[in-house]
Amino acid sequence: MTSGVDLAGQAHQCASVLLRRWLAETHTPVAEGPLRLTVGALRLGTDVVYSSPTGAHGFGAIHVLDDSDEPVAVADPGLLAASCSADARARALPGAPINSADAGSLVDWLLHALPRRELDPLALPDDLVAVARSVSDAAEARRWLAAHVEGRLLPAVLSWEGEDVAAATVKLLTRGPLAVIGLLGRRGVVHEEDLLAELRKWLGGVAEAHPASGWLVEHWLTSPTLTDLAALNGSDLRYRADSGRVEVRPVPFEAPNPLWSGAAEAPGVPIPELGEGWSLRPVEVVGDDGGPDVALVHRWMNAEHVAVNWNQAWPLAQWRAELAGQLGGQHSVPCIAGRDGRDIGYLELYRVQRDKLARCYSHDPHDLGVHIAIGEPDAIGRGVGSSLLRAVAGGLLAADRECRRVVAEPNVHNGASVGAFGKAGFGRSGEVGLPNKNSALMIFERG
Amino acid sequence: MTSGVDLAGQAHQCASVLLRRWLAETHTPVAEGPLRLTVGALRLGTDVVYSSPTGAHGFGAIHVLDDSDEPVAVADPGLLAASCSADARARALPGAPINSADAGSLVDWLLHALPRRELDPLALPDDLVAVARSVSDAAEARRWLAAHVEGRLLPAVLSWEGEDVAAATVKLLTRGPLAVIGLLGRRGVVHEEDLLAELRKWLGGVAEAHPASGWLVEHWLTSPTLTDLAALNGSDLRYRADSGRVEVRPVPFEAPNPLWSGAAEAPGVPIPELGEGWSLRPVEVVGDDGGPDVALVHRWMNAEHVAVNWNQAWPLAQWRAELAGQLGGQHSVPCIAGRDGRDIGYLELYRVQRDKLARCYSHDPHDLGVHIAIGEPDAIGRGVGSSLLRAVAGGLLAADRECRRVVAEPNVHNGASVGAFGKAGFGRSGEVGLPNKNSALMIFERG
Repeated sequence: MTSGVDLAGQAHQCASVLLRRWLAETHTPVAEGPLRLTVGALRLGTDVVYSSPTGAHGFGAIHVLDDSDEPVAVADPGLLAASCSADARARALPGAPINSADAGSLVDWLLHALPRRELDPLALPDDLVAVARSVSDAAEARRWLAAHVEGRLLPAVLSWEGEDVAAATVKLLTRGPLAVIGLLGRRGVVHEEDLLAELRKWLGGVAEAHPASGWLVEHWLTSPTLTDLAALNGSDLRYRADSGRVEVRPVPFEAPNPLWSGAAEAPGVPIPELGEGWSLRPVEVVGDDGGPDVALVHRWMNAEHVAVNWNQAWPLAQWRAELAGQLGGQHSVPCIAGRDGRDIGYLELYRVQRDKLARCYSHDPHDLGVHIAIGEPDAIGRGVGSSLLRAVAGGLLAADRECRRVVAEPNVHNGASVGAFGKAGFGRSGEVGLPNKNSALMIFERG
Repeated sequence: MTSGVDLAGQAHQCASVLLRRWLAETHTPVAEGPLRLTVGALRLGTDVVYSSPTGAHGFGAIHVLDDSDEPVAVADPGLLAASCSADARARALPGAPINSADAGSLVDWLLHALPRRELDPLALPDDLVAVARSVSDAAEARRWLAAHVEGRLLPAVLSWEGEDVAAATVKLLTRGPLAVIGLLGRRGVVHEEDLLAELRKWLGGVAEAHPASGWLVEHWLTSPTLTDLAALNGSDLRYRADSGRVEVRPVPFEAPNPLWSGAAEAPGVPIPELGEGWSLRPVEVVGDDGGPDVALVHRWMNAEHVAVNWNQAWPLAQWRAELAGQLGGQHSVPCIAGRDGRDIGYLELYRVQRDKLARCYSHDPHDLGVHIAIGEPDAIGRGVGSSLLRAVAGGLLAADRECRRVVAEPNVHNGASVGAFGKAGFGRSGEVGLPNKNSALMIFERG
């Protein structure tokens, strides 16, 4: 009844794979130290013992926490799989492919994977796994990388047909050398940043020597995000082939690009002129209680129709602190919008580059984003929101001539909001996972 | 990040609870030593280190096995819960309550139970748990049992209103002192059989002293099975209240009665006279290859319409051995049924008391059972099966005047078979879990 396999270690490995994927696919920032999070109905805690630029994080024991955040059980792979499944299904709309009766679930995958000793729903090719396991020091890793770029990556880039950047990126980069670099980093064989710098250098050389193929390599070097495959979260995910056989059918998503050398500095957020009877002014915070603007925002945020979507029905003092914090920072500007002299709604205007959304799509440094809440109940549902959004998007594009896009990320379940953005001229550009929801990425392009 | 709780031990405890329930609710026989079983898609192995007459078995590490029955992972509670859920849902018909969209699942229960440190979907009352944990030797256990019978069981029996034997049994016995005896046995504090004998003696005294309440106690002492609650398997199970709140809504089932002092000796199986143009004869096994009857049964069992339900599409030699084994034993008699001189079907006639079905319902020693396969495809679907079944049931009741019931247990998914038994005069008496299916218990009562 022994098999020579470290069963407890294997369970931790498998749980770690699932946690790592969930963090990546929900674009959750990760730093070394304690990590607490909620996956579906499961409250989890662990220590991040290795924080990886490629997402190959390492964890201490992963625990289920009680209401006081005390550990009560080891979060076993089966439990994690079930929670991730419930989470992903709840994030998606009821009619989404992942919620269809024959979609299967991550638990189906786990049940079939265990006897085959598979730990990862998106395993790497065997030869790359062998590299990741066998390379034993940084010099050897550098030699492998050079050989890989010369012998495999470069020929593949030069012979790649079609212009499907996403497919090329997944096959040649994210599910290839980037994954290997992550595994070597977690094993402590290399500093990932060193090897990433080396890969950047190699890719720069490729782009220079082979300008015809540069479009792909250029993308890899300059895009803030790269396409990777999601196996846990995404409305289009399925875990069964059409034949009913268990088979993970992953979907593409955008993850932060570890080769990206960083953003150009973006200017602050402009306050647009709206016209058409609309006014917009930054919130004013005055005095100990914040003054009338803070009181207004507090009242709106505690109105049921706003609270259900914003989940920020905070006390006055907390809103005073929040608004003062926003006004004192570079990230976003809280504003009050008025129509014909009457205040009706709250907006936050932000630079995507400084927002959590920066991790989710290939943004430009000048992209601007907007959050909106129509606070006055009698101003809802008569095209007021979409009229305001059209005015704001147009005003932002006019105020920053270098800005090409205004974006928003309403919860996919918030059909009213998605609809209002659509009516205002925002196009729906896929779905992005965030730590607590899946959002429709809505984009208003400069015409 | 420590809680003083033995997390690994807790995981094993929780997995053990689930395995114990699954074994009970599927009426799987358990003996000390290695145990291999299949729950849904999960192949499991463990060592039974304590085999309990009340079902309170103790297990070594519970492993997931690969195709060669080698352990590949620890079967964590989450995985077991997911597998038990999938298993229970697949056993039930698609329209059963357990398969309704809002039924919830065992995983929902587990996710909610973990932070509350609950290990068992059917926890005992706190005071009984305290007893089971604190009693430290056999003498103390006997004193507790005497006090429990005198102070709690007897008053409850005497004041029990209504005639709901099942509810009274669950509340007063199976989810009461029998569960405590099991826990004390598994802890090694008592020999369960000793304490069960003591309880039998006490109950005998109660029945004698209080004849008016004897109906209930009499049932406890003389029924081969007692009603217990199922939390893992059963078509009517649900894991959510009507409000949507997670809440296990268990269903009653029959489990072997550890107080039952054993069966009266039942005679062998009679071969009935059928009449109405039907003939029936025991299979003859002759010569090295078994002869023509064995060849016939082998052919029928390998016909697709039989194989899908019987799962015994074995080679000839295996059928020869099987039939010779049945003919040499007391359990069942394999027969060939003919109509107007033509052999058309295979039957197994058996005494329930010697069958796996004896663990599933409160049978009489003379109850007889029947398995049937219409082997000739052209004899299917025109009432032939139900005509034969009616003739067999009538013939068996005529052949054994003490027999009051003829029973059968077709898979609930085998609508054709359930329907044929129904047409033949068998009534459907609930659903029973067996190791590999849920069966409709079909009963033909002496009129």
